[in-house]
Amino acid sequence: VSAAPKPKRKPLVVVYTGHGKGKTTAALGILFRAWGRGMKVAMLCFIKTKTSNYGEEQAAKRLGIEVIPLGGGYTWLSQDIEKDKALARELWTMAQEKISSGQYDIIILDEFTYPLKYGWLPMEEVLEVLRRRPDSLHVVITGRDAPQELIDFADLVTEMLEVKHPLQRGIKAQPGLDF
Amino acid sequence: VSAAPKPKRKPLVVVYTGHGKGKTTAALGILFRAWGRGMKVAMLCFIKTKTSNYGEEQAAKRLGIEVIPLGGGYTWLSQDIEKDKALARELWTMAQEKISSGQYDIIILDEFTYPLKYGWLPMEEVLEVLRRRPDSLHVVITGRDAPQELIDFADLVTEMLEVKHPLQRGIKAQPGLDF
Repeated sequence: VSAAPKPKRKPLVVVYTGHGKGKTTAALGILFRAWGRGMKVAMLCFIKTKTSNYGEEQAAKRLGIEVIPLGGGYTWLSQDIEKDKALARELWTMAQEKISSGQYDIIILDEFTYPLKYGWLPMEEVLEVLRRRPDSLHVVITGRDAPQELIDFADLVTEMLEVKHPLQRGIKAQPGLDF
Repeated sequence: VSAAPKPKRKPLVVVYTGHGKGKTTAALGILFRAWGRGMKVAMLCFIKTKTSNYGEEQAAKRLGIEVIPLGGGYTWLSQDIEKDKALARELWTMAQEKISSGQYDIIILDEFTYPLKYGWLPMEEVLEVLRRRPDSLHVVITGRDAPQELIDFADLVTEMLEVKHPLQRGIKAQPGLDF
């Protein structure tokens, strides 16, 4: 009697996009789950700045999970787009190293759709890096307006649709829930 | 000179619904963030069974976060609907106690839309409990097909829309990503 075949681990590219809330939050849920299974995870944040200190960063620090914020803040508020571009390229270089290192089970590229959408990073290069990644690595990408080429390439895409948003009633982001 | 008023904490009812992936996962992201801020969180799972041992349960156990699975498994696979109903009522009783206790910052009712949708729990009672909750408590509810009354009541509603699902290509749920 031969044993039942072990379910094959299939590395996925997951995209959470759309204008509704819950994209980065869902990526953090994956991070939490994966950590629970003893998997190695890293999250690189393309908008959050070095000086941010969100709940997720506090949690990650306590657990020894790599969460690396190296963005320039919200692009639409930016004073210096060239600096933001340079930061995005720097973080993408770091991401490439981590992706090809073979040392991770899951890598999260948070708010990664923005540098793609603005053309700061060449889409073909990004897809090539994803295509050549180690065959055990999941990559999770979040952010609004994921480019169609990325959606076509990805295995799993969820659009977070805004049905009701508290800002409509003037209620701001809440600690714990939103950051 | 008077100090700027501290941003008021406004307790929200958050709903993640829709047929796409990322609903429970986003709730787990909130749990992670809130834990990072030292907030008190509990998650009550209305579908997951006592014997489940998902990544999130392993993580929660290690961190001392209450994640309580007391469902009967997927309803559409159920052999004993009466038993499932009784479990849902038992867990809802527990949820009510926690909600009214004043001891939590965030309570997550995972897959809670199902007992509502099936009429196992009276909607009016549920809304009344939510309405009377302590004024510092956020409640997060996940699950497909959230009833309209719940959407009307909630402060923040995101619909997770399935754009692309790996099951369409026969790829099953992946540890770390999905459970």
